[in-house]
Amino acid sequence: MKVIMIGGVVVGPKVSARLRRLNSDAEITIIEKGTLLSYGACGLPLYVANLVPQLDGLMKTSYGVLRDTDFFQSQKNAKVLTQTEAIKIDRVNKKVLVRHVVTGVEETLDYDYLVLGTGAIPSIPPIPGVNLGQVFTLHRPQDAQALKEFIKAKKVKHVTVMGSGLIGIETADALSSPRLKVALCEAESQVLPKLLDADMAQLVERQMKLQGVDIRLSCRVKALEGDADGNVCRVQTEQGVIETEAVVIATGVRPEVGLAREAGLTIGITGAIQVDEHLMTNDPFIYAGGDCAEQRHLITGEPVYIPLASTANKQGRVIADHIMGISARYAPVEGTSVLQAFELNIGRTGLGEAEARKRGYNVVTSVSSGLDSTHYYPMHANITIKLIAEKEDGRLLGAQVCGLGDGVKRLDVLATALKFGAKVADLIDLDLAYAPPFATAIDVLIHAATTLENMRLGVAQGITVEAFLNRLQAGEKLCLLDVREPDEVAANPLSIEGTKVIALGELRERWEEVPKDSLVVTVCGLGIRGYDAACMLKGKGMNQVVFLQGGLSVANAYFDKI
Amino acid sequence: MKVIMIGGVVVGPKVSARLRRLNSDAEITIIEKGTLLSYGACGLPLYVANLVPQLDGLMKTSYGVLRDTDFFQSQKNAKVLTQTEAIKIDRVNKKVLVRHVVTGVEETLDYDYLVLGTGAIPSIPPIPGVNLGQVFTLHRPQDAQALKEFIKAKKVKHVTVMGSGLIGIETADALSSPRLKVALCEAESQVLPKLLDADMAQLVERQMKLQGVDIRLSCRVKALEGDADGNVCRVQTEQGVIETEAVVIATGVRPEVGLAREAGLTIGITGAIQVDEHLMTNDPFIYAGGDCAEQRHLITGEPVYIPLASTANKQGRVIADHIMGISARYAPVEGTSVLQAFELNIGRTGLGEAEARKRGYNVVTSVSSGLDSTHYYPMHANITIKLIAEKEDGRLLGAQVCGLGDGVKRLDVLATALKFGAKVADLIDLDLAYAPPFATAIDVLIHAATTLENMRLGVAQGITVEAFLNRLQAGEKLCLLDVREPDEVAANPLSIEGTKVIALGELRERWEEVPKDSLVVTVCGLGIRGYDAACMLKGKGMNQVVFLQGGLSVANAYFDKI
Repeated sequence: MKVIMIGGVVVGPKVSARLRRLNSDAEITIIEKGTLLSYGACGLPLYVANLVPQLDGLMKTSYGVLRDTDFFQSQKNAKVLTQTEAIKIDRVNKKVLVRHVVTGVEETLDYDYLVLGTGAIPSIPPIPGVNLGQVFTLHRPQDAQALKEFIKAKKVKHVTVMGSGLIGIETADALSSPRLKVALCEAESQVLPKLLDADMAQLVERQMKLQGVDIRLSCRVKALEGDADGNVCRVQTEQGVIETEAVVIATGVRPEVGLAREAGLTIGITGAIQVDEHLMTNDPFIYAGGDCAEQRHLITGEPVYIPLASTANKQGRVIADHIMGISARYAPVEGTSVLQAFELNIGRTGLGEAEARKRGYNVVTSVSSGLDSTHYYPMHANITIKLIAEKEDGRLLGAQVCGLGDGVKRLDVLATALKFGAKVADLIDLDLAYAPPFATAIDVLIHAATTLENMRLGVAQGITVEAFLNRLQAGEKLCLLDVREPDEVAANPLSIEGTKVIALGELRERWEEVPKDSLVVTVCGLGIRGYDAACMLKGKGMNQVVFLQGGLSVANAYFDKI
Repeated sequence: MKVIMIGGVVVGPKVSARLRRLNSDAEITIIEKGTLLSYGACGLPLYVANLVPQLDGLMKTSYGVLRDTDFFQSQKNAKVLTQTEAIKIDRVNKKVLVRHVVTGVEETLDYDYLVLGTGAIPSIPPIPGVNLGQVFTLHRPQDAQALKEFIKAKKVKHVTVMGSGLIGIETADALSSPRLKVALCEAESQVLPKLLDADMAQLVERQMKLQGVDIRLSCRVKALEGDADGNVCRVQTEQGVIETEAVVIATGVRPEVGLAREAGLTIGITGAIQVDEHLMTNDPFIYAGGDCAEQRHLITGEPVYIPLASTANKQGRVIADHIMGISARYAPVEGTSVLQAFELNIGRTGLGEAEARKRGYNVVTSVSSGLDSTHYYPMHANITIKLIAEKEDGRLLGAQVCGLGDGVKRLDVLATALKFGAKVADLIDLDLAYAPPFATAIDVLIHAATTLENMRLGVAQGITVEAFLNRLQAGEKLCLLDVREPDEVAANPLSIEGTKVIALGELRERWEEVPKDSLVVTVCGLGIRGYDAACMLKGKGMNQVVFLQGGLSVANAYFDKI
């Protein structure tokens, strides 16, 4: 059996490894256009940030062996052709025409099965100046090396990043320092627009500003301008000019499907190669996986394009199994994505609120904050969790996390729950591991679920910071009731007009001081005392009381701007 | 409505808080025998270890307010009677007789609903000497304070801990230092016998020995002996005498059910108070929760006694809801437990292998090791995961984790999957969050599931270290084939007779050097290359090949002893 992989970064190597385990005789060939194989592209921002000292760390196994041509030959018995481009697929005769990039020599290879792992390429916006010097992308190891060497050699002080997706934010974080000012231009009105809802993105934006990033939202770049040497020196945007020494374009990627399209393989509505649940294209002898292929979304059932290394590896296994006649299926995805940037752990799974609403779901959401471990444990930090659920039956649709604390553990739990069709009430029952270094006795995730269920069932009513501010700006009279302790208030007093301060411990005595002629919005640090205060005032017969969701841990991101 | 809580540590306060949110009028009374309320008992070892500087940190809210009588009065409008013991329950007239511990004054209180949160008490073995001076337990804050002050004041150099359950191990960790030698006596043949299977316990034992703990397994303590001042100075064990300056008894707890039993409430087969799914006792006006009550196990459906703060808090919510007529149910538990000790993160959920076999399940298990984040990320560490599943359909029964790395995230994912009746194949499909700081592209949990599924379906055959050693010791001729890189072998050469060293990268060339007349057991650092090597040799027609599960990350714990 002859199996050819086109692309040697993730899917090709993974299919090869699994296939070899299942079949010692298969003739496996990997064709790779570039020089490098099987590298950890997700680690490139870490290399730029000096967290990974050597670029070849990204190309080694965990036991220190370089995953090069020899490695695949000796360990997987796979023949690797680097600097070799696949030019044409002859599906009728099951042949691939390849050309060596340097010599130009062409060759025809036979296959029984072909695996397309052609990946993605940076999506470069059609504006003037993108080909100037000192304009970078961060897609391949060479890109990262060029950027890092340039920054170091020229002692660069100003870099502009275009795009605030995962790579854009990670790059901004990697570059930003007291010595290097980063400007970030995002055409949308929030950072991480494909990852987070606007409210959660606020938390990221606040932290980035605190760390000195010049964030420009709703700011499309119109042109890059160069100096006499042909190097970029100026960014023309809808919000004016940014002087810069370098530009990193991180405006997303698009699937590399030219070869597939030319071979008559079906391209899906996402622009990526369409595959079935076995990752088979419309040709039963050709599979596709990784950044060039579509996936199906677990919640919507629709095709999506969410290129990730984790899913690409899973796909590789399914492809190898299916080639070997094992009835493997690739499961629908939830789009679970995560990044660490500006000390925050940021992630999402499933549908966001905006997406869910657009698709017509009747949505209920909660935004809750809490600590990732007990407050008395030496290391603990805050997490904010947003849950998105169907209002009628409480079925979880998605979740987002952001914070200095360990939100990723909770995200993985939510991704797992989502997989099994969990309802919010199920989350409350989860038997999660508790000990002081790992969680609070009532985990922040359980707290988030409880909050959402309370709101869904009408036990408590919360208001989002955005809704609160919208009503305030519309001229409505609102009373913000700050129930924190005096020392907390002194450290971070609220500047919203009409704020009343009564610590929760005094509220039962002093509740009559609370205005009765306007909506009362209770607020505390994380939201829990605000919730208690709202319950207390309701118990006193006040019906116009809501608590501010997530407390100041969320609201501060908005209040800073007022 | 009058609701009385007996016990003010976890369940009582939690019921009070939730009840108050739902009902502003209820007359809530908390009766507590001791002086302290609502403290984080799980943090006591951290206090002993100087990780929590002040004991009252365990009694404060996260925003720094002491949870004392005033707190419950002002914030929850709950009346608290400390140093007050409940003497008798008159179920017919719905009255509780209480007595003030100091004054002896008695009083009768009416209730509509009674909540028993009487907790547990340390189980002291019936041996001579347990009442000597300098014999401690670690149950209440006062115990921790007494122990810590004694250690500090007397510059103690030798302490003996009796029992290696969660508290025993945490205490040993808290005390053990280059200046203080801890001896640990465990009657069973492994540490953490209720938490871990013997193979996983080996990993803990190895780490404890490396850190200088004198572990005595299968070593029942026969008596404690005192000096002339009546202070303990010697521990008589089945394995001889241990000279010591103090003893900490950590041989478990038993539920405090005296009051309930006397009132005619049903005590279950576990010895704890029997409750239904609403946490109601056999008296519909009396509920019980926390460390005095039974729970039901999710997998077996049988009653279990697993006292934990996390579940006690969940129970409090259910009790309050049910009192208020909300149809809340307390879900069966998985016994998810975790601890951090000797730098290891250790935990379990569901059934262990030994338990599952005893209950007649046809069990298949895997032990796998891997990194918690990418090897090129600056912080990464090893995790070992044991999965226990039903052989026929692959349904997950339980899991255990141990390692320096972040195993708790994976444990929480497994606990969540277990909740939804996951099969091992479902775990392979989980869409977990990947980025280099948080996981490897193929997460160690996915790897563990894949390994188990491969073994269950016969794609690969693994052998446990224990089975390997048993066969070796029975005189069978075995070839251990070490496929690590030369630098790894040089750093940690294997001393097992008959070990053959061929790096995986050379095995395809040199496979004919491998003996054909005995079972070949392939081994590497974490197990993955061993698995690859076994597949490769099978491909060459060798059928007598298995890989050593978990590689040397597991085997080292056993090999050290040979």
